[in-house]
Amino acid sequence: MDHPGKAVVIAVDAMGGDHGPQVVVPGVLAALRRQPACSVALYGDAAAIEPHLVMEPGEDLAVTVVPCSQDISMSESPAAAIRGKPDSPIVKAMKDQAAGKVQAVVSAGSTGAMVAASLLILGRLASVDRPAIGTLIPTVNAHLLLLDAGANVQCTPEHLLSFARMGHVFGREILDLASPRVGLLNIGEEESKGNDLTTAAHKLFRTAPFDFVGNVESNHLLQGQADIVVTDGFTGNMVLKLLEGFGLYLAGLAKNERVPAEERQALLPALAILEKRFSYENYGGALLLGIEGVSIISHGRSTSRAITNAVVTAVRQVAIGLPQKLQIELGRTS
Amino acid sequence: MDHPGKAVVIAVDAMGGDHGPQVVVPGVLAALRRQPACSVALYGDAAAIEPHLVMEPGEDLAVTVVPCSQDISMSESPAAAIRGKPDSPIVKAMKDQAAGKVQAVVSAGSTGAMVAASLLILGRLASVDRPAIGTLIPTVNAHLLLLDAGANVQCTPEHLLSFARMGHVFGREILDLASPRVGLLNIGEEESKGNDLTTAAHKLFRTAPFDFVGNVESNHLLQGQADIVVTDGFTGNMVLKLLEGFGLYLAGLAKNERVPAEERQALLPALAILEKRFSYENYGGALLLGIEGVSIISHGRSTSRAITNAVVTAVRQVAIGLPQKLQIELGRTS
Repeated sequence: MDHPGKAVVIAVDAMGGDHGPQVVVPGVLAALRRQPACSVALYGDAAAIEPHLVMEPGEDLAVTVVPCSQDISMSESPAAAIRGKPDSPIVKAMKDQAAGKVQAVVSAGSTGAMVAASLLILGRLASVDRPAIGTLIPTVNAHLLLLDAGANVQCTPEHLLSFARMGHVFGREILDLASPRVGLLNIGEEESKGNDLTTAAHKLFRTAPFDFVGNVESNHLLQGQADIVVTDGFTGNMVLKLLEGFGLYLAGLAKNERVPAEERQALLPALAILEKRFSYENYGGALLLGIEGVSIISHGRSTSRAITNAVVTAVRQVAIGLPQKLQIELGRTS
Repeated sequence: MDHPGKAVVIAVDAMGGDHGPQVVVPGVLAALRRQPACSVALYGDAAAIEPHLVMEPGEDLAVTVVPCSQDISMSESPAAAIRGKPDSPIVKAMKDQAAGKVQAVVSAGSTGAMVAASLLILGRLASVDRPAIGTLIPTVNAHLLLLDAGANVQCTPEHLLSFARMGHVFGREILDLASPRVGLLNIGEEESKGNDLTTAAHKLFRTAPFDFVGNVESNHLLQGQADIVVTDGFTGNMVLKLLEGFGLYLAGLAKNERVPAEERQALLPALAILEKRFSYENYGGALLLGIEGVSIISHGRSTSRAITNAVVTAVRQVAIGLPQKLQIELGRTS
């Protein structure tokens, strides 16, 4: 890989997502126009990538192609794919990150493969027992980071504490909040409410070195009373998908012939507003916190704009040294 | 209690909910106009109830008042309230149901007190280990019953199977579905997806005597692919409250000065449509399935119309003999 003079190299899976290179490559080029100090290595089928590498006249963007002869489909078993497809974009890029050739990997491909490759190839930070997926969600006034959004379906209270501490660092370093407000997703405001996991986690959070604002009930989740909202990966994934489901419900109503035509009509502007606000495009992708590196998992339906934002997010995490900051902070005993 | 010639007597907590008798009593009168074969016993402060007992000229609705000197507030510990307030509407009405004087209890008061009173005073059906709260939720085309919506925050796979079987009976007897489609709420469609609870429950459901349509992901929940959706009470409550939270999010946006005025304006008709569709008024209340009797838990913000629907729902459950049907069905080994 030849990226002379570029401090940061971001690896991007050109084949990932529903649309592959025709969407990913323009997104990467747009990111490079915004981030001239970095370069991108595009991993994938060179013949499929190159037709989309169209620069503007006089432009010399720092992009290279790393040819890959394999690819991982969305339906493959992640662990098997990591072992069996060493020449796939995700595996090859992650190995290059482990070797220090690139500083981050962005993919809109299989979430499972991204998580597995991050864990198996990069490994977790020494001070982190369980890396977590963080996802930004819009609130009435701003946004919040929900974690874990699906990496760990079974959690202990100590895992949730670790997620909270990682979220706290993310909020301070990436969201630029002086003192991020950390909440625990729960089914009641009182500390006695919830299941065994949340009641025990609530106790741990109360003495932890971050601004714990208490339990956040899901009816108040989008009101913005916390910047970082912690939950187990089963509940987090359920919440994330239900938010998507609400949009699908409105879209379904708008198309349902049994709904009066004027109601269907009235739903359309609201749907457009929601689609804009809840668009994964705004945030570029989910991130895996707690690994020895930077992994951004973009939505399978990513547009070019989503890829651009994912690359910009990756550059920011690398520039700030997020993994190193997490390692230092979580290495301290609370 | 004197209700000559009335086969079914429904006990209604006149003091329950945010507005008490001024909302509950008119709701009850409207229900009696629709259900002339039944009568209602109103439990509460007689002096507060009687001013609202206004019949139309020539009308002779079968309503009586059962004076109560105590009341249970929303913030009281349910178990302590049940023990300490024998002359509160919920406790007195539930004891009258246990004694066969009334056949169902409807309250818009404390959910916890209603659940505790149902369990402690009526008791659970012999064939049911854990009663569950069922709640009707609208879908794009119809509605679904979600259970457990919050009675059991810690569940085993066997509990979920029992919820599914109760839901199946409810779907057949109350929703009039020949073969209710039962789904398992989960974070993936494949049977291997989920946490320990859902993967084990999936296996049990596959050989159970109902139409199991597989895992339902929360993004598809409101699409109506299942009539009965089963989950543990923690997740169910989280889902229910997040649906409410989505409405609050839209309402918050519509009031947010930082949102462009035309967007705020565009959200208002959609909000009205959602409020109408997701209104607890339509369904009257949640129900506790698996107890030796009929308990309907109405929303604290119940309107008269919600109370009317709750009473009508109670009459229907009594007329069909839902507890008896559940007892027979669940008494059979699957």
